[in-house]
Amino acid sequence: MTSDATPALDPAVADRLKRDGNGLVAAIIQQHDTREVLMLGWMDDEALRRTLTEGRVTFWSRSRGEYWRKGDTSGNVQHVKGVALDCDGDALLVQVDQVGAACHTGSRTCFDGRDLPIVTDQSVTTDGDPAALEGDARG
Amino acid sequence: MTSDATPALDPAVADRLKRDGNGLVAAIIQQHDTREVLMLGWMDDEALRRTLTEGRVTFWSRSRGEYWRKGDTSGNVQHVKGVALDCDGDALLVQVDQVGAACHTGSRTCFDGRDLPIVTDQSVTTDGDPAALEGDARG
Repeated sequence: MTSDATPALDPAVADRLKRDGNGLVAAIIQQHDTREVLMLGWMDDEALRRTLTEGRVTFWSRSRGEYWRKGDTSGNVQHVKGVALDCDGDALLVQVDQVGAACHTGSRTCFDGRDLPIVTDQSVTTDGDPAALEGDARG
Repeated sequence: MTSDATPALDPAVADRLKRDGNGLVAAIIQQHDTREVLMLGWMDDEALRRTLTEGRVTFWSRSRGEYWRKGDTSGNVQHVKGVALDCDGDALLVQVDQVGAACHTGSRTCFDGRDLPIVTDQSVTTDGDPAALEGDARG
């Protein structure tokens, strides 16, 4: 029997997902060769199905309540190179080849230049002082 | 004025967090030098405060409803090297120096050996076939 219904995520994969209250898992996006962590997005079953079958990453937008793909407006698309699910099923690691900037602000990653201050007994590091972050933060 | 109350997360940081319905943000844990993505955990304000001030990573366990630190039982501790918050405030990237295995299963990362099959028009890749994942998955 075949069906014309919308295809579903492989049940063998769906059974391994541990979704949050909104049916979502976190998706870490990493540049496959340099290993830069580019961004974090959210996927439901359908977003993951598309990501595993369409060659580009699809997310679910929690704020807009719709599916979206990086690059549809900017051209900065993410080509899927591999997807792994973590040991407890609530996080995906998606290896991509990112064209251009991953962040909507224009920075390469969504974390660039957004360091938080680390305060230990011996030191305070602040935004804009990367050298300080290289110090011993173990207190 | 000083206070004996439990210290709070720096308001300048707290104001930037976009928490989910349970008051949590996602925390990506990355080995600072090799750039391996080791795991993903969850933090509330207090877990982040501890992470920024105590030199080791503290998480909030969604399943157990308690704070926990990697390594308290296994010895596989995570020393904090840097923390960045993403552009929209719902994800942290924590650079660590991970002692031993990051995964409770004993694997180096929580994603090792857990690839999902990618199905495009031209190819099917499956778990346990890393070579296939290196192919062109763009369809």
